[in-house]
Order: sequence, then C-alpha cells, then structure tokens
Amino acid sequence: MSSSQQRAFNAFQLHFEQLRHNRLFELSVVAVIIFSALLAGAKTYDISANMSRTLLWLDYAITLFFLIEISIRFLGENRKRDFFKSGWNIFDTLIVAVSLIPIEDSELAFVGRLLRIFRVLRMISIIPELRHLLNSLIKALPQLGYVALMMFIIVYIFAAIGTSLFANINETLWGDIAVSMLTLFRVMTFEDWTDVMYETMAVYPLSWIYYLLFIFLNTFAFLNMLIGIVVNVMEQERQEAYQLAHKNDLTLEDLSAQINELKQLVSQQSR
Amino acid sequence: MSSSQQRAFNAFQLHFEQLRHNRLFELSVVAVIIFSALLAGAKTYDISANMSRTLLWLDYAITLFFLIEISIRFLGENRKRDFFKSGWNIFDTLIVAVSLIPIEDSELAFVGRLLRIFRVLRMISIIPELRHLLNSLIKALPQLGYVALMMFIIVYIFAAIGTSLFANINETLWGDIAVSMLTLFRVMTFEDWTDVMYETMAVYPLSWIYYLLFIFLNTFAFLNMLIGIVVNVMEQERQEAYQLAHKNDLTLEDLSAQINELKQLVSQQSR
Amino acid sequence: MSSSQQRAFNAFQLHFEQLRHNRLFELSVVAVIIFSALLAGAKTYDISANMSRTLLWLDYAITLFFLIEISIRFLGENRKRDFFKSGWNIFDTLIVAVSLIPIEDSELAFVGRLLRIFRVLRMISIIPELRHLLNSLIKALPQLGYVALMMFIIVYIFAAIGTSLFANINETLWGDIAVSMLTLFRVMTFEDWTDVMYETMAVYPLSWIYYLLFIFLNTFAFLNMLIGIVVNVMEQERQEAYQLAHKNDLTLEDLSAQINELKQLVSQQSR
Amino acid sequence: MSSSQQRAFNAFQLHFEQLRHNRLFELSVVAVIIFSALLAGAKTYDISANMSRTLLWLDYAITLFFLIEISIRFLGENRKRDFFKSGWNIFDTLIVAVSLIPIEDSELAFVGRLLRIFRVLRMISIIPELRHLLNSLIKALPQLGYVALMMFIIVYIFAAIGTSLFANINETLWGDIAVSMLTLFRVMTFEDWTDVMYETMAVYPLSWIYYLLFIFLNTFAFLNMLIGIVVNVMEQERQEAYQLAHKNDLTLEDLSAQINELKQLVSQQSR
Repeated sequence: MSSSQQRAFNAFQLHFEQLRHNRLFELSVVAVIIFSALLAGAKTYDISANMSRTLLWLDYAITLFFLIEISIRFLGENRKRDFFKSGWNIFDTLIVAVSLIPIEDSELAFVGRLLRIFRVLRMISIIPELRHLLNSLIKALPQLGYVALMMFIIVYIFAAIGTSLFANINETLWGDIAVSMLTLFRVMTFEDWTDVMYETMAVYPLSWIYYLLFIFLNTFAFLNMLIGIVVNVMEQERQEAYQLAHKNDLTLEDLSAQINELKQLVSQQSR
Repeated sequence: MSSSQQRAFNAFQLHFEQLRHNRLFELSVVAVIIFSALLAGAKTYDISANMSRTLLWLDYAITLFFLIEISIRFLGENRKRDFFKSGWNIFDTLIVAVSLIPIEDSELAFVGRLLRIFRVLRMISIIPELRHLLNSLIKALPQLGYVALMMFIIVYIFAAIGTSLFANINETLWGDIAVSMLTLFRVMTFEDWTDVMYETMAVYPLSWIYYLLFIFLNTFAFLNMLIGIVVNVMEQERQEAYQLAHKNDLTLEDLSAQINELKQLVSQQSR
Repeated sequence: MSSSQQRAFNAFQLHFEQLRHNRLFELSVVAVIIFSALLAGAKTYDISANMSRTLLWLDYAITLFFLIEISIRFLGENRKRDFFKSGWNIFDTLIVAVSLIPIEDSELAFVGRLLRIFRVLRMISIIPELRHLLNSLIKALPQLGYVALMMFIIVYIFAAIGTSLFANINETLWGDIAVSMLTLFRVMTFEDWTDVMYETMAVYPLSWIYYLLFIFLNTFAFLNMLIGIVVNVMEQERQEAYQLAHKNDLTLEDLSAQINELKQLVSQQSR
Repeated sequence: MSSSQQRAFNAFQLHFEQLRHNRLFELSVVAVIIFSALLAGAKTYDISANMSRTLLWLDYAITLFFLIEISIRFLGENRKRDFFKSGWNIFDTLIVAVSLIPIEDSELAFVGRLLRIFRVLRMISIIPELRHLLNSLIKALPQLGYVALMMFIIVYIFAAIGTSLFANINETLWGDIAVSMLTLFRVMTFEDWTDVMYETMAVYPLSWIYYLLFIFLNTFAFLNMLIGIVVNVMEQERQEAYQLAHKNDLTLEDLSAQINELKQLVSQQSR
C-alpha cells in the first residue's frame, strides 16, 4: 500500500470507528434488535399470508442491517485480530452468518426459526450492564458447581433407592432411574409431592421417611450453598477493604522506624 | 398587604403550622384513614339499602375531612411552593380532589370505588416509617432492573421456542408468545408445572430438558440477584464504616508529622 | 421471726437453691416435660378405656410433679419478688395453676386438653438456648412489623379491587374482602394460583395483570425486608466491632499526647 | 524382622505410597466409581438375562478393584493405625467389606442392591472439595439444631391441637398426631394446603386462623434461622479479620513503649 493509500484507509477506518461509538448508531442497533424480537413474537400468532410475506421481507431487512452493523464494527476495529478475541463479537458474527444461509427445507425450518429467536440474545451483547451481569453469573458458576454435584449425587442415590422400592407401585413415576430423578426433582420443587408420597405410603406406610429425608437433605445443602456464597462475597469484600486501608496510609512500622531514628539522634547527642 | 394584615396572616399561619404538627391531629388523620379503609372493606359485603345510604354519608364525611386536612397542611406551609415539591403532598391532593368529582355514571362507578380504595395508600404518606420503607423500595428498583430485564429475555426466548414446539399440543397454554410467557411464569412459581411438562413429554419425551434448563437458569439468575444485593449493601456499609473511622481520629500521617517536628527540634539542639 | 428461725429458714432456702441449680433436677424436669408431650400425643390415638385411665393418672402425676418443681423454684429464689419479674416464671406458674382446676365439663374439655398441650412450651422456658432463640425472635418482631403492615396494605387494596371485579365470577373466592384476602394469601404462597387466575381470565382476559402485579409487589417487598434485616444485623456487627477495636487499645490521640510531652521535655532541655 | 527384610518392606511400602498419590491412580478410582454408579442406574432398566449376567460380572470386577484400591491405600499408609483414624477410610473399608459378603437370599437382595448404590457416596470420600463441603455441612448442623427443635415444637403443638379439632373431619389427614404432623409439614411446603384448609373451614369457618398462624410462625422461625446463620458467619469473619489485622503489625502499645523509652533517654540526658 502506498503512503497516500494508507492515509486514505486510515481516514476511512477512523470514520467507521467514530460511527461505531456513535450514540445514535448504538441506539438504532438496540431498536432493531427489539424489533426483531417483536417480529419473532409476532410469528407465533395466526397471521394472514399477506402479513406473513411482509414479515419475511422485514426479516431479510433485519439480516441485512445486522450484516452492515457487524461490518462497520469489524472495519472500525484498529487491529483486525482483536475483533475475534472478544467472545461476544464471535457470537454476533455467527448469529448473523448463519441467518444468511437460506433455509427452505421444512426439516431445518425449526432451526432457522430458533436462530431468529436467538437474535434476542444480541441484546445482552449490546447492553454493557447485561454483559456485566452475565459475566458475574458465569464467574459464580464454579462456586455453585460442587454444591450442584453434591445435590446430583443425593438425587441419584435416592432415585436408585426409589426405583428399587417403588417401581412396582407406579411405573410412570418410578419406572427407571431417569424417570425417578425427574420425579425427585418434582418433589424438590414441592410440586404435588404429597400425591407421590401418599401413593407409595399406601404400600409402604413408612415411605414418608424417604421423602422427608430427601427434602431435608436438599434444603440443608441449598442453605449451605447460600451461606457459602455469602461467605465468599464477604471474604472478597474484606480483602478489598484491607487493601484499601493499607494502600495510601503510613503503617505503624514506618512510625516505629521514625521513632528509632529519633532515638539514635538523641543517643548521638548524649555522647 | 399592609403590615398589620401581614402580621395577622403570619399569626394565622403559625396557628395552622402548629396544628399540622400536633400529635392529636396526626393521630386523628390516621384514624380516619383506617376508618375509610374499613368502609371500603364493608362495601364488599351484602348490605341493606339503609346501611348503604349511611355508608354514602360517611364517605362524604371522610372526603370533607380529608379536604379540610389537606387545606390545613397547605395553609400551614411557610412557602406555598414547597408544598407541591413533595410528591406525597401531590398524591394526597390528587386523591382528595378526584374524590370530589361526583360520579353517578355506572361505567365510571368502578373508577370511583377504586379511588376510595386508594385512599388506604394515604396510610403510607402519613406514617413516616412506611414512607421511608417505600423510598428504600424505590431506591432498590434500578438495582433489580437489569436482573428483571435478563429474566424477561430468558422468558421471552423460552416462550418463543415453546410456542414453536408445543402450540399444537395445547393451544391454551402455548397458543401464542403472550400465553406461553404466562405459562412459563407459572412454571417459574412451580405451580403445577409437572402437569404442563408431562403433557408435552407425551409428544416430545425429551422436553423435560426444556423445563429443567428454564428452571435452572431462572433460579441461577435469582440467586445472582440476591448476591448482587448483599454485595451492594455491604459495599455501602463498608464505605460508611471507613468514613466513620477516618472522621474524628488523628491519622498516622499527623503523628508522623509530629515526630518529624520533634526530630527537627532535637537536631537544632544538637547544633 | 426469731434469729434462730431466720437461720433455719436460710439453711432451708439454700438447700432449695442448690436443688434448683442441680443438673439432675434440671434433666428430670426436661424428661417429665418430654414425657408429658408424648402423653399429649398418645391421647390422639384410639386407646382402650383401661389405657385411658392410666393416662389420666399419669396426667395427675405430671401436674403434681410440676407443682412441686415450681414450688422448689419459688422457695429457692432469694428475693421472692424477683421470681415474678421473669416472664417465664409467670408463664410456668400459670400453666401449672390452670391445670389444677378440675375440668369435667365437656365444653371446657377442649380447653383442658389445650392446656396439657401447651405444657410442651415449658420446653422453651427450661432450655436456655431455646429461650435465647425466642427472645431474638421477639426482638426481631418490630423490625419486621412495618414490612408486614406494608404487605397487609398491599393485600387489603388488592382484595378490595379483587372483590369489586371478581365477586360475580366466584363467590367462594372473592365474595367479600375477608375471603378475597385469604385468596390473595393463597396466591402469595403460589398454591394453585393459576386455577384462580384462569377462572377470572375467562371473563376478564387481562386479569393476569392483576395477579402478576400482586406477585411482583409482594416478592419485591419480601426481598426488601430480607435486605433490611441483613443491613440491620451488619450495622449492629459493625458497631460491636468498632467498640471492640476502641476498647482496650491506645488511640492515636494518646500517642500524640505522649509525643507532645516528649517535645516539651526536649524544649525544656534546650533552654 | 531382619534389617534387610525391613529395608525391602520399606521400599515396598514407599512404592505403594507413591502409587497412592499418583494422579492416574486417583483418576482411575473416580472413573470406576462413576462406572459403578452408572451400573447401579442401568440395573433399574428392563434388561435381558444375558445383559444381566454381564452386569453381575462387572459388579464382581468393581468389588475386586475397590478391594485392591483399599489394600493399596492401607499398605501405602506409613503408620497403619492412622489409616483407621480417618472416618472416610473406615467408611470406604466398610462399603467394600460388606459387598464381599455373598447375598443370594431374596430378602437380603434389597440390602445388597442398596450397598451397591451407596458406593456412589465414595465419590464424596475421594473428591476433596466434596469432602470439604460435607464437613462444612456437618459443622453447620448444631447451629441449625435448636431452630429445628423450635420448629419441631411448633409442629408438635399444632399437630396436637389439629388432631383434637379436625380428627372427625378427615381421618386420613388428622387421624392421630403422627399423621397430623405430616399434614402440617405438607402445609409448611405450601403443597395444596388450601385444600386442607377449605375442608376444615367448611366445619369451623374460623380455622384459617390456625393455618395462617402456623405458616407465619414457621416463616418467622425460618427467617430468624437465616439471620442467625448470617450473623454467625459474619462474627467468624470479623474475628478472622481482627486476628489478621493484629498479627503481623506493630500495635500502638509497641509504639507507645518506644516513645516512653525515648522519653527516658531524653530525661537521662537532661540530668
């Protein structure tokens, strides 16, 4: 590239960069995303063939708009490689790229519709506060992971016991371990759990022990998880507070050193 | 206004101002509000025509009382403009003003009844603790706003998917996106959610994934919101604690300066 | 009372005081309370006339035991007036005193049975940890009071509106304001709330707004209450932490004073 | 044992100790545990006789593997006594030992199956994070104990009252105190509690007071427990923070002593 071409390109890119951070541009993108969400919702209603055609055209228009938007973002990026370092940019590009593929096949029609619905997720990628919220959700995942594993083990063991005991009573609820786990999840949400219990109590009058033990263990694990989260949050807070307190201030050690210096000074004088 | 008129007016206003902050006056206002609430409740019972007429007269009496009360408040205000600076005063005035409009029309009768019910809300404007509570509720709103938006997006996407998949199974629950969102809110409250699930599992045996994913995502977002609130509250507490600790006390810097002064003194001596 | 009588009485009282704080005495009281609780439970089963008579005699024995126990406590108290200063002692005495009244009348039989059940509450008065727990429960009451009042106002207003709108649809659920409040409490616990909603939606298709608004307002008020409690608890903790930190330690002010003294000393020397 | 034998044994043991802490060994144990869990699940499905025989052989293989694994752990322990000091080792050994007993009897077949299911619990003993989680759960138990006792007393008293009042209305729900307690636990989980209430309200129209009082008392006790836990956690945090702050730093007392020394020095000089 000659120097003049380079300069022209730089000016060109600067133009896109400014456009990209333009408030109006951002708002119009949000508006189009909301519009596309409404469109996805509108399609679930019974609509005339005429209307349906209009929706199809609007859909094409939205895809085009998103294509242009992503291009502007890409061109507005100083170093092109950095663009794909952000997971959100990759997500946005994927959503737009896949919706460009024409899907006429009735089998894949559902996938196409799903993609149009997932466009709503672009809302999260475009609004910083939601992005921040999702990041903090993901950051909290490992913390919850072991409690989830613990609860899964509890459910698994109870499901195995439940299937052994109750499979003959109600095949639909306790037929195999998968179905039993679903039934126990239902018990965990307290959804008509007494119906399930009364049925097995008719055969095993002591089976209420099974349900109560299961509910108590889960409630207990859940409470413990809550405590764990609060403790973690407080631990972080405390460390931040400690760092804040010990950042700008003098420490007592500094003062002690000062006094020692003074002592030496006085000692020297006395000699 | 002549000077004597002015003085008379000031005395007059002072009288109202004293009345306004009178404990007995406040208690009687609270009593009338409670009485008006009971009246609104009493009207929901089957009552004789005679009783009904009595209630109507009591209603007029209450409206009159409130009119006088608001007038006293207004006249007792030093600077008349400040009266309408408080949202609560505007709310009180509006409630009283609108109940003065005679509503005979059967169509508007419901609105009239509603207004009489809303008088109970004056309880909040009159009791400082409740006002304080509502203010803190309103202050917490933006904090919850983004989580609510996130949950709305989750519900919207799942509703769109749900309508696509399950509309043919149960038109009443999954007919269009609005109805699906209501159904999903029902699932969120665990209200007979297994009935909904078992119905769709009869057609799509794997549809339990849809429900469990939805429940987990929502529980997770809700937990995250709770953590967020606790963190926010603690952050505020910490800052207050920091300001309290560093308000009245000497800092180590002050001590250090003192020691340095002392050092200079000693040094001067030694010369 | 002569001096020797006084001495004899003191020795007598000391004996009771020792007995009262005797570990074995306390354990036997707890044992009898648990036994009386089991007795109250046993009576709910179908029992033979023979067994029933035995239970009656055991009941008399328990009443006698409690009477002796309270007497020992009373006699073991140094200053007799202090005995009735404790609410728990009054409660214990009342429970025992009333169960002494012979109730043969079938109408009052229920009250008599109730009294025997309330003996279980003596468990709280005898175990210090439970007493402590109940005290902290009672101390938390005013804190929760205003939120409860706020929620009551919300329920009352919604009940008044609900009765106006839905009384014609279902007399049992929305007949008058009391019944409506019960229905709304049911909605608050998510207990088959959609059944209630679907019924009114058949007449007023938009009535879901009413239910969702109600649920959101209540959830919001409840969350706010939780935050309020956590903040209060932390506020107390913080103050305790502050007092602890500033109790035994020297303050920086003390050090500053020391340095000033030293400065004066040096200054005097230099003169 | 001769010295050379001792040396050979030590080398032998070191070999086992190294194997025991080998990453690959640990992962293969976790893999076999997961495999045995899947096996326990697979048995709940209808399987052919052929498949069933294969599962039996796999089961023997797993038992053998666990036997070898425990032996390696035991031999790899330096001091053999320490092995049985860990509750987890005892638990592991028991699970493996009991599954060695051949159970052919159909009566004991259920116990055998249960044991195979409990093998999944070895997951907790092998993954340190889960072990840590369970320990913290157990540590929290006494803290929750008194609240649980309090709630049990509430449920017991209400069950006794409920049986007295409602036994004639519905024998199945309120027949005796045990059944009533189960019904009240159901009310506590809000599971179709209005059905229970409406039934008794048909006879005693005021019995809603009973249910609401019960729900409020329990919600209140539960909230109080949550507060108690948070306070406890914060108390611990505070003490840790205090110890951290006062561990490495000089205290103001140290500084004060230093200044005093200096003062003495200056005083001596002036003499």
